[in-house]
Amino acid sequence: MRREPVPYTPVWLMRQAGRYLPEYRAMRARLGFLELCKTPDAAAEVTLQPVERLSVDAAILFADILLIVEPLGVGLEFEKGEGPVIHRPLRSERDIAALRPIDVDAAVPFVFETARRVARALAGRVPLIGFAGAPFTVASYLVEGGPSRDYLYTKRLMYEEPEAWHRLMELLAAATARYLNGQIAAGAAAVQLFDSWVGVLAPDDYRAFVQPHMRALIRTLTPGAPVIHFGTGTAALLPLMRAAGGDVIGLDWRVDLDTAWATLGHDVAVQGNLDPAVLLAGPPYIRQRVKDILDRAGGRPGHIFNLGHGVLPGTPVEHVKALVDIVHELSDRR
Amino acid sequence: MRREPVPYTPVWLMRQAGRYLPEYRAMRARLGFLELCKTPDAAAEVTLQPVERLSVDAAILFADILLIVEPLGVGLEFEKGEGPVIHRPLRSERDIAALRPIDVDAAVPFVFETARRVARALAGRVPLIGFAGAPFTVASYLVEGGPSRDYLYTKRLMYEEPEAWHRLMELLAAATARYLNGQIAAGAAAVQLFDSWVGVLAPDDYRAFVQPHMRALIRTLTPGAPVIHFGTGTAALLPLMRAAGGDVIGLDWRVDLDTAWATLGHDVAVQGNLDPAVLLAGPPYIRQRVKDILDRAGGRPGHIFNLGHGVLPGTPVEHVKALVDIVHELSDRR
Repeated sequence: MRREPVPYTPVWLMRQAGRYLPEYRAMRARLGFLELCKTPDAAAEVTLQPVERLSVDAAILFADILLIVEPLGVGLEFEKGEGPVIHRPLRSERDIAALRPIDVDAAVPFVFETARRVARALAGRVPLIGFAGAPFTVASYLVEGGPSRDYLYTKRLMYEEPEAWHRLMELLAAATARYLNGQIAAGAAAVQLFDSWVGVLAPDDYRAFVQPHMRALIRTLTPGAPVIHFGTGTAALLPLMRAAGGDVIGLDWRVDLDTAWATLGHDVAVQGNLDPAVLLAGPPYIRQRVKDILDRAGGRPGHIFNLGHGVLPGTPVEHVKALVDIVHELSDRR
Repeated sequence: MRREPVPYTPVWLMRQAGRYLPEYRAMRARLGFLELCKTPDAAAEVTLQPVERLSVDAAILFADILLIVEPLGVGLEFEKGEGPVIHRPLRSERDIAALRPIDVDAAVPFVFETARRVARALAGRVPLIGFAGAPFTVASYLVEGGPSRDYLYTKRLMYEEPEAWHRLMELLAAATARYLNGQIAAGAAAVQLFDSWVGVLAPDDYRAFVQPHMRALIRTLTPGAPVIHFGTGTAALLPLMRAAGGDVIGLDWRVDLDTAWATLGHDVAVQGNLDPAVLLAGPPYIRQRVKDILDRAGGRPGHIFNLGHGVLPGTPVEHVKALVDIVHELSDRR
């Protein structure tokens, strides 16, 4: 993350703690998703599972990007296999005017406790990465009421009620900064901002409706813990994301890593960018695609290997393990 | 399309003949979607509706990109509000080995007849644009069985059974060329290839699995009818699409038009690129966003104004009409 020389390319995987792992599924057979997030013992255990199983170079906190919005009273629920549902979405200026600032410490003490337990268990073997949803992506759930295809309510709010939109983004940016700083205080060595759905926006929308809030948020984070700034579908947004901030820019698979890195400038680190679908193919094919990405990174310090988005639920565990081993083997500089 | 000087920026809209129009909905109350496509009188009428109502500068043939795959016997059906369903998707080498070449003239005589009627009715007032789905996008429906989020069956087929994939793409490219040439013979003055979902691919996937087939297809098209090559989410694919062919590259809203055009080179025309969601806002906001795009185009010949994808079903007709008028007014060079 600091672009220092390393003996091999470090690798971790978005959603490395998740449904593709039998030990995770065993845990979920006992606990609902939200219950798991709110039980520090169990959440710490699933955070640590892939570190043991895969030899990845970082742990990523097990949590959900919507946990901090529970106090907004929007009726958050995780329905089986459907993803999050917001029963009372925010659609108007009035809905948003009624919101109170989020008391993050009261809302997610269990996340900070999970981070403390994981950091203690890792004892410095590998770092713990904390994370949060970026304000746009979190706002899109709050406004749409769940995942969306076209983000029409979100865009309509931005275009037609820009003051309400900015108020919502300010509220979320402040809460997110407090949330990430709490994770850092609890032992996270770095943090990732997931602006997963920001790629649905035109660059001009990003400039007007997102970038100022990302800049303010990232400036408020505790110095010393590097920040990974990630989104998908962001090929044309990368320079704007870079200008907003982050020590590492997360790339999805829709860009060539070398072209994207050159566009960003080599004075920032990059993370990525294998298509998660490649892990459905066998290890020989995975090897070929890993080699392509490492070749594009060119052995330059400041490349963290990752997928371009999260591990897909149906991925065979042995393919994920093979990926980590192949990255370590092919990038070995010792 | 030929980058000749024009008195004002020409504008047409993807899906300008569609559900947002009351006269289209009236027609659909009488005829099912597939029935409408197969009834030249009715299909010609809905093709002409937006030309009358909106004063757009081109008609776009009313049809569906999956019509030519009906003879493959995959069980194509258009379910209400669900989009197309393929009841027997192509998932394996065996499924694909069993396919016979598509006899396009036998499969879609009604499309050619619709084109002839529209061309006759337009009598040169505005040109008729024909269209087809590009082989990747059509293949993705055939393999997934319908619309998809992650295109996992398609990618798995590409990665694990590349010979079967290439056989399918060759079959579709040959049929598509025949299909577009038939539309040109029937009176289409230009054609658009919709590679709507190609943006889900990594650039390396595009190079290996799509580009050779697009190049072969575009080279086979009747000279003299300009070709628009369109996709969404293609920011990093644009130079590869350009290299594959096309007189006009269609841009979605996720890129700045000036940056994208500079990347492509000014010796190719561009089409785009307003976010269809902007049409949900009122005319004053539409005006501001149209001006931004026209400013980025800089009055350079070779810009066709369009949305970045199709008109959304819930769009108010008067906003669509306002858009066309605003484009004509703000770009007037007379």
